[in-house]
Amino acid sequence: MSLFQYTLLHQDAQTSARRGTFETAHGVVDLPVFMPVGTRGSVKGVEISQLEATGSQIVLGNTYHLMLRPGAEIVRELGGLHEFCGWKKPMLTDSGGFQLFSLAKIRKITEEGAVFRSHIDGRKIALTPEDSIRIQEALGADIAMAFDHVIALPNTRAAIEDAMFRTLRWARRSRDAHTREDQALFGIVQGGLEYDLRQRCAEELAALELPGYAIGGLSVGETPQEMYDCIDAVVQHMPADKPRYLMGVGRPEDLLEGIKRGVDMFDCVMPSRNGRNAMAFTDHGPMRLRNARYERDPRPLEENCPCPACRRSRAYVRHLFVTGEMLGPILLTIHNITYYQRLVAGARKAIEEDRYQEYYAERFAQWREGVPD
Amino acid sequence: MSLFQYTLLHQDAQTSARRGTFETAHGVVDLPVFMPVGTRGSVKGVEISQLEATGSQIVLGNTYHLMLRPGAEIVRELGGLHEFCGWKKPMLTDSGGFQLFSLAKIRKITEEGAVFRSHIDGRKIALTPEDSIRIQEALGADIAMAFDHVIALPNTRAAIEDAMFRTLRWARRSRDAHTREDQALFGIVQGGLEYDLRQRCAEELAALELPGYAIGGLSVGETPQEMYDCIDAVVQHMPADKPRYLMGVGRPEDLLEGIKRGVDMFDCVMPSRNGRNAMAFTDHGPMRLRNARYERDPRPLEENCPCPACRRSRAYVRHLFVTGEMLGPILLTIHNITYYQRLVAGARKAIEEDRYQEYYAERFAQWREGVPD
Repeated sequence: MSLFQYTLLHQDAQTSARRGTFETAHGVVDLPVFMPVGTRGSVKGVEISQLEATGSQIVLGNTYHLMLRPGAEIVRELGGLHEFCGWKKPMLTDSGGFQLFSLAKIRKITEEGAVFRSHIDGRKIALTPEDSIRIQEALGADIAMAFDHVIALPNTRAAIEDAMFRTLRWARRSRDAHTREDQALFGIVQGGLEYDLRQRCAEELAALELPGYAIGGLSVGETPQEMYDCIDAVVQHMPADKPRYLMGVGRPEDLLEGIKRGVDMFDCVMPSRNGRNAMAFTDHGPMRLRNARYERDPRPLEENCPCPACRRSRAYVRHLFVTGEMLGPILLTIHNITYYQRLVAGARKAIEEDRYQEYYAERFAQWREGVPD
Repeated sequence: MSLFQYTLLHQDAQTSARRGTFETAHGVVDLPVFMPVGTRGSVKGVEISQLEATGSQIVLGNTYHLMLRPGAEIVRELGGLHEFCGWKKPMLTDSGGFQLFSLAKIRKITEEGAVFRSHIDGRKIALTPEDSIRIQEALGADIAMAFDHVIALPNTRAAIEDAMFRTLRWARRSRDAHTREDQALFGIVQGGLEYDLRQRCAEELAALELPGYAIGGLSVGETPQEMYDCIDAVVQHMPADKPRYLMGVGRPEDLLEGIKRGVDMFDCVMPSRNGRNAMAFTDHGPMRLRNARYERDPRPLEENCPCPACRRSRAYVRHLFVTGEMLGPILLTIHNITYYQRLVAGARKAIEEDRYQEYYAERFAQWREGVPD
């Protein structure tokens, strides 16, 4: 196996779901994979050993947040992101493009790059594709993302087309600026819900022969069905011999829909963010742990879950939220990430056994049933 | 060894420090011991496995907080405090007396007990010695505390005397109400800084032949030296064949001063509370991790500390606090509890080797030096 090698282990017999691996400088990642989000060098409230115990194989860090605080040069000085935060397995950094879209104030996008004011202290900062790559190389994750231009949906075709072609030009500049041989650079397919633009973007990026490709600019305002249809339309134009990463997505059902369509990688803040807000993901759908129905419930969130939250009662987890104890958000974050990891681990096994469609149907059926009394 | 047996393993040759053990239904506790505070069934931000890794042997829960939320009957229904919070080693609950003193609103103390308004929702609640014991039996910790009357210092001799005699009467009522054979009931010596009252209280409590005794009502406004002198005055009147517990104390130096005077047990929120506020206890004294001097400091808090915070750099811990990441308070809480446990473990070893005075002098000398550049 060589660095950044994608290996297809098994193609599901009935769906486009595929079981593969991706080799990085910090180890092999089993695909499909879910990446928890460690925005500022920490998955909120979760210690490294706890994160490992969830079954997580690769963690995402946000370039935009880390460039603001503590700053990429400080992270580099301290040995890079792995050394800085203590996670010694694979990591990925995004390009900053999405956070510019969602967080930064008074953005101005030109061909050169973006100029924005920090959402923390308002200072003016320029970020070009070259800057993004330089910063991501300083951070030193195993996978860096090309700098892209993200826009909201719905939008005009002209705006989508403009952002897509800029994303292509910025991808070439990102590739030209990229020097680290121990770091894979992934391209990002943009193009909104315009399938022909998505196809054009995917094909031109494929010509760059990057070690992996992402679908960006989804889950930004469109319906789930529009997103699934778009994944269908774009995946077929993405190289089959490279990992495919659906950025910023999503709910458990979105993961299964993506995997079914041939997506290999996912990241989302949902398990951690919802966990902090007292929502637990389970095979019976979401549980809201502040609910009075759990006040005396001696059962764990899920009988078959190995996480530390599930070594306690629902009543205890509820008590932690009602009294504002930090351990509540911590335990549900761990539970939810564990849930996502068990979900994708189950998907990997199902694909290996050519029964992904069955696995998918079982999960959806159980989710629809809801939490039994 | 029988249940609640105190065993003196070794008396230090030069000081009153002593190395012993205390047997409970959930295992043997090595003395001297420090008990982290898990007020509402959780040491704030710390998971059970992390707490075990700090070297903690016994955890304190607060009766006052737990009776308000979730309520003692719910904890009992769910199998008791051990089962509820997942800590399967020894536990101790206080009597509620101190929290009535420090937290409850519009208290009224009569011979019967206390009537107060909850600090959470203002509802009126009565708490007698019999109530406190009934609640502590429902919680089911290994050690329960007799209900006592705590007052602030300085105070008039008349007020101190009144509270001390009431504490004695309430101790007898607590003992009469106590039925659980798997739970030890400790008496609490009150009497402010009036040594003759402390002596009287200690001697009358000793006659009750309880399995352990505490010094209460210190660290409530007096100077450290006044506290140490008072410990000297009271310890000599407490039974030598029972554990001696100094309640709610204190700083690392207070622990070493107490141990030197023959105290066996301590509890304090300081390691966790200060940790949440970015203060780390170390052999070189306190470090304030928000300080800019640590911005690029690649060293761990302490070279020889096995805790997870010390597998990171000071710069990383600082970054977590500066960015408001939950992991900062979590890591420093774990570090500080680990520090306290290493401190008392070092004391136990030093006593065994008849060099407690040396250990004490070394620690104080290093604390005075401060954190090197």
